[in-house]
Amino acid sequence: MSQALEGIKVLDFSHLLQGPFATQMLGDLGADVIKVERTGTGDGYRNWTFLNYRVGGEETPCFLAYNRNKRSLTLNLKSPEAKEIIYRLVKECDVVVENFRPGVMAKLGFGYEQLKEINPRIIYCSSTGYGQDGPYSTRPGQDLLIQSLTGLTKVTGRGDAAPTPLGTGIADQMGAFNIVYGILSSLYYREKTGKGQKIEVNLFQALLTHQLQELVVTLNLGRNFERPNSGIGHPGMPAPFGIYQTADGYICISANPIPVLAEVIGDQGLVEYDDPMILFDKRDEIFYRIQASVIKQGSAYWIEKMLERDLWVSEVKSHIELPEDPQVKHLNAFTSYHHPTAGEVKTVNIPVKFSETPGRIDKPAPLLGEHSEEILLELGYDQETIEKMKENKII
Amino acid sequence: MSQALEGIKVLDFSHLLQGPFATQMLGDLGADVIKVERTGTGDGYRNWTFLNYRVGGEETPCFLAYNRNKRSLTLNLKSPEAKEIIYRLVKECDVVVENFRPGVMAKLGFGYEQLKEINPRIIYCSSTGYGQDGPYSTRPGQDLLIQSLTGLTKVTGRGDAAPTPLGTGIADQMGAFNIVYGILSSLYYREKTGKGQKIEVNLFQALLTHQLQELVVTLNLGRNFERPNSGIGHPGMPAPFGIYQTADGYICISANPIPVLAEVIGDQGLVEYDDPMILFDKRDEIFYRIQASVIKQGSAYWIEKMLERDLWVSEVKSHIELPEDPQVKHLNAFTSYHHPTAGEVKTVNIPVKFSETPGRIDKPAPLLGEHSEEILLELGYDQETIEKMKENKII
Repeated sequence: MSQALEGIKVLDFSHLLQGPFATQMLGDLGADVIKVERTGTGDGYRNWTFLNYRVGGEETPCFLAYNRNKRSLTLNLKSPEAKEIIYRLVKECDVVVENFRPGVMAKLGFGYEQLKEINPRIIYCSSTGYGQDGPYSTRPGQDLLIQSLTGLTKVTGRGDAAPTPLGTGIADQMGAFNIVYGILSSLYYREKTGKGQKIEVNLFQALLTHQLQELVVTLNLGRNFERPNSGIGHPGMPAPFGIYQTADGYICISANPIPVLAEVIGDQGLVEYDDPMILFDKRDEIFYRIQASVIKQGSAYWIEKMLERDLWVSEVKSHIELPEDPQVKHLNAFTSYHHPTAGEVKTVNIPVKFSETPGRIDKPAPLLGEHSEEILLELGYDQETIEKMKENKII
Repeated sequence: MSQALEGIKVLDFSHLLQGPFATQMLGDLGADVIKVERTGTGDGYRNWTFLNYRVGGEETPCFLAYNRNKRSLTLNLKSPEAKEIIYRLVKECDVVVENFRPGVMAKLGFGYEQLKEINPRIIYCSSTGYGQDGPYSTRPGQDLLIQSLTGLTKVTGRGDAAPTPLGTGIADQMGAFNIVYGILSSLYYREKTGKGQKIEVNLFQALLTHQLQELVVTLNLGRNFERPNSGIGHPGMPAPFGIYQTADGYICISANPIPVLAEVIGDQGLVEYDDPMILFDKRDEIFYRIQASVIKQGSAYWIEKMLERDLWVSEVKSHIELPEDPQVKHLNAFTSYHHPTAGEVKTVNIPVKFSETPGRIDKPAPLLGEHSEEILLELGYDQETIEKMKENKII
């Protein structure tokens, strides 16, 4: 075994971001991920992009980002032939992942109770917006909505502005990791006991858990965090914690001892605020005061001076600067894979380093239905039957 | 086995947020987590709080949030007796987690190469800010700095404002999940092969991976996302995606079909913008136009009208409102545990539901050194030796 999940087969009914990101993490460690897609259109992420951009003119960056190391099988899921194919695959698979709205899989004949009859060792993970039932279970479960419902937008940004979402998804990413957490722990349990199980994950609880320490404060203290009007970067933190404008851009000044900071920025008067409660209560006033000094020099000047004194400081970078970032280069944090129509696709490399079972990108994101024939041949279907299914638009 | 990680022993040298959050996720599934803390002060998170608040007057919410289901062993790590204790524990443990700066563990005699001599099956996870080496490896690796260095603050908030961090940590949380991903996949691999391994995780790559689709756009297109000046919630998204002010608060309007939205808000002129490129290019103009209609009614009115038409809409809630949220109640998303000095500690419940191996909160966050004696007795130390180590401040 050269990879941690070698030999594991994942039958992946998921689409968009959360599920595909999770199954990609399994594929990165060697699992064989079979992505089941609707004939015709496939995963909705094949048509979801930003800035109207498609890599090489056809493939969306969103789909390419989350579907490497997978094979694509297209199926008309409502056909009896598809049902037979799925049941035959389930016999050989270890894991099923799906993120349809509650009840859809059972209606198709692919619910947990149905599939475990075929394979009692199956690990079956359902992911939804808000859980399988309850008052929100029929509501749309999109990332921005979950950010808004869980309080995250009300602790982000400035107090005198509207609640501010994160500029990327976050519920989906946290949800993806919850899927991985559920599946990998269940795989270990199955090795020990031989038993499969059903796992349920939802975006709502994933994002509540993300805010664990903030919620422990509010739940126990009974008091909300108030966002500062200045650029202080967390509603519970004292000055100087924030992003400051320099003569030529911005720098980030995290939690730091005030006397050292005062000395470096040349404002000795700042030490008068050096008390935990004052640094919190007057954090806006202190922010503006530090800002008045920091604006006088360029970012590189401050970074050098502050790092010399072991202050917690950094550049504030744009994505476009990252390929030239020295640590990105050192870590090979970016990589690329070859895709038959998109060409060389630049992407983010696997973030976890394993001494014995390194992750690998073996396959590009698949074309729609690229592996349908190959997968059916593996299942023992003959060429004639496969051709007939193609004609009838079953695959 | 009633829990997925029953029988797994974790020796946890980590402190602050990332490592402890990761090992808590292992403890929630039944692992025995032994938290090794410095005699005297312990984990720095025991003294890290927000709003100067301590639950029950003594314990910080930050420590309570991330340390349930663990036992605490205090050690003076530089003493020869501590080295012997650690070596004896390593023989019995499955997993070691640490997040010291690079090189510290090896200096103490607890590096991977040293510990695998004692237990070749050990799974050893090191977590750092930027990786074990490279140009940033000696830099401070705090969450806000990582948000700034990876481009996240430059895609968040309004274009006419400073780069905006998320109002909670995020690199730490993503890093924690990378630790869990590494350890659980390695546990499965070890079941199959008998081999342990070393895993390396860092906050920097965890947060780059969080921004996977945004980075795939920028890396391949060679163009940065521009933040909108209005409240559009993602720099790559067209209108109406954002948070809008109502007569009595805010609502979130995610991606939605313009004709339906136009009808519901009573602004038919909006349909003239109904083209993907126009919805992107004129998103600020459209945002302000929708805002002008939405301000006329209260939030509850809009939520009802929009959900009736299957629009993607939600409330924008504060943390303090969440205990009364109907879905939070339905899911038992919040729970509490009893702590000997803090009393009843309210916290967020385990977010993943397992049919066979449900997670549990069996133990409150430990007092400093609460289990030192118990753990040493399990290792076979006699009472006399333990008393002597107490006197000499070794434990």
